[in-house]
Amino acid sequence: MEKISVKASGNYDIIIEDGILTKTGELVAPLVKGRHAVIVTDDIVDALYSERVMTSLKEAGFEVDKFVIANGEASKNAENYVELLEFCAEKRVSRKDVLVALGGGVVGDLTGFAAATFLRGIAFVQLPTTLLAAVDSSVGGKTAIDLKAGKNLAGAFYQPKIVLCDCTTFDTLPEETFADGMAEVIKYGAIADKELWGWLEGDMAETNIEKIVARCVSIKRDVVEEDEFDTGLRQILNFGHTAGHSVEALSNFAVTHGSAVAIGMALMTKISVNKGYVNTNEDIYKSMVNMLKKYKLPFTTEYSAEQLVGPMRSDKKGDGGSVNLILLKNIGECFVQKTAYEDVKKMLEK
Amino acid sequence: MEKISVKASGNYDIIIEDGILTKTGELVAPLVKGRHAVIVTDDIVDALYSERVMTSLKEAGFEVDKFVIANGEASKNAENYVELLEFCAEKRVSRKDVLVALGGGVVGDLTGFAAATFLRGIAFVQLPTTLLAAVDSSVGGKTAIDLKAGKNLAGAFYQPKIVLCDCTTFDTLPEETFADGMAEVIKYGAIADKELWGWLEGDMAETNIEKIVARCVSIKRDVVEEDEFDTGLRQILNFGHTAGHSVEALSNFAVTHGSAVAIGMALMTKISVNKGYVNTNEDIYKSMVNMLKKYKLPFTTEYSAEQLVGPMRSDKKGDGGSVNLILLKNIGECFVQKTAYEDVKKMLEK
Repeated sequence: MEKISVKASGNYDIIIEDGILTKTGELVAPLVKGRHAVIVTDDIVDALYSERVMTSLKEAGFEVDKFVIANGEASKNAENYVELLEFCAEKRVSRKDVLVALGGGVVGDLTGFAAATFLRGIAFVQLPTTLLAAVDSSVGGKTAIDLKAGKNLAGAFYQPKIVLCDCTTFDTLPEETFADGMAEVIKYGAIADKELWGWLEGDMAETNIEKIVARCVSIKRDVVEEDEFDTGLRQILNFGHTAGHSVEALSNFAVTHGSAVAIGMALMTKISVNKGYVNTNEDIYKSMVNMLKKYKLPFTTEYSAEQLVGPMRSDKKGDGGSVNLILLKNIGECFVQKTAYEDVKKMLEK
Repeated sequence: MEKISVKASGNYDIIIEDGILTKTGELVAPLVKGRHAVIVTDDIVDALYSERVMTSLKEAGFEVDKFVIANGEASKNAENYVELLEFCAEKRVSRKDVLVALGGGVVGDLTGFAAATFLRGIAFVQLPTTLLAAVDSSVGGKTAIDLKAGKNLAGAFYQPKIVLCDCTTFDTLPEETFADGMAEVIKYGAIADKELWGWLEGDMAETNIEKIVARCVSIKRDVVEEDEFDTGLRQILNFGHTAGHSVEALSNFAVTHGSAVAIGMALMTKISVNKGYVNTNEDIYKSMVNMLKKYKLPFTTEYSAEQLVGPMRSDKKGDGGSVNLILLKNIGECFVQKTAYEDVKKMLEK
């Protein structure tokens, strides 16, 4: 069992423990005043894990409703968001009640946004069932839905009451989905933690994923506590993501988020080396490529520099003329560099 | 000119001045980093006031887009909310840009909620063009949309950067819409300000509406500063609203908000008198009825006590078994009393 406490506009704990889903009710009950819970999940997770969560909540005295969306990023849309709000209203969910997000990042982001806005804000808890959600979207309080024009374009900063992470749920993940999560895990090592990087070079992802998740969550926690509303430091968490988002968009999301981030990380590492920013004699690009290979992640793309720069221009964090690149000095050490689009293009051309 | 400063999670000024719409650009420009503004308005207000606001914004260097909804409460829906978000995304509105709510409460609430959630929050300003919006919805940071199951069921607490109130716009209001606003004005007098009540018994609504608006805004400001997130004191602003919402709902919104609140205030005043809560020998019920008559507002309803209690059960502030009633000790002096639905029914029966 690992426990990480987050201090944000609302404080909360992240508990990582095998089998913890069956304790949902007893852990959530002391945190909310109401006794009506709505489990939000997707059809795949529903079949696997809803029952144990529902049983646990009922045993703790909750009346439980369930709202199920289709698995996949396409479900993180405005239609499902509004439907979930209407569902809560119909079921007479009150200000004191709680939404329970059971699933991956899509479920967590959608549920969090609904919780942030239903009756101007009710409680929610996160039960991430993917590695990606565990180390990324369930920490930090960013909730969102996608719009037609792009991902995560509407949302809120809103903190859960608690995050319960049962790593045994990762066993049922398709290999590709697990690899998606590993891309973010590798990111944490690259930007902030050479020790974690070493663990990943070894076999700890197989022998003790709980410890790895805890380390990633701690890193994200530290960053988010300093910059809850994403005005500065938090940008380092975007390592690999700016170019990655371009790859995702250009492929019309045929390339998964993790694979796209992997490609983005390889590109940014290459740029860091080419521009002479690296402060070590080790070949960190080779180290990055080997790491991505080990976890069955891609590291090259067919898209041209010209193509990759295109979608960056509509990046939420952009200001029209430039974008902040996250680059490496070493494995475990990164920095932010504001770069004009033209320069990004030149860098990528190499 | 009257200026009221509000200290909330974001501080802002409310400026009340004839003709101030033509200064929108110069007043908004120093408050936002971007130079892209989206005016959100309704079709009636659009024809009357959009041009002067647009001209002013353009003169201050803004690129301006416009999003127009149909006039009326029915427009405060999830569909328009999502459309507005998509519109902002298509127009590439950035985190530094601003939404400009030009209109009544519907426009203000919808725009504020969109601003609160687009890119997880961008700036917005309020230009209320109805008395009701000026004294009520444009102050206090409550933004919302209606769901099928009820009014204001989704939203956010979110503060504007500035509120610019041009009372000359009230001249174009239909008589009934002006009376709607007067119901809220009368409310402020009843719960908190006997001097304001005196002004209203006289002719100041005709001779100096600016001063009346400023006084109402000050009262709301004082309450909201103490209770931004609506956990206690702010409830007194609901004087007349709980029963009023029932009347609105029962009439399927054929009775306007202001008329419904007027009826609610008369009922609550009657209850206050009947229960002996009043600490004065003056007949405050008669005073209330005379005031409502003076401003062409209703004070009786055909709905039975049984009917009126029905919709209260789904009130956002209810806890299932009881509701907080706001009652009067005197004109200008109120208190909150948690009351079981059964007792509310008995009180209303009288």
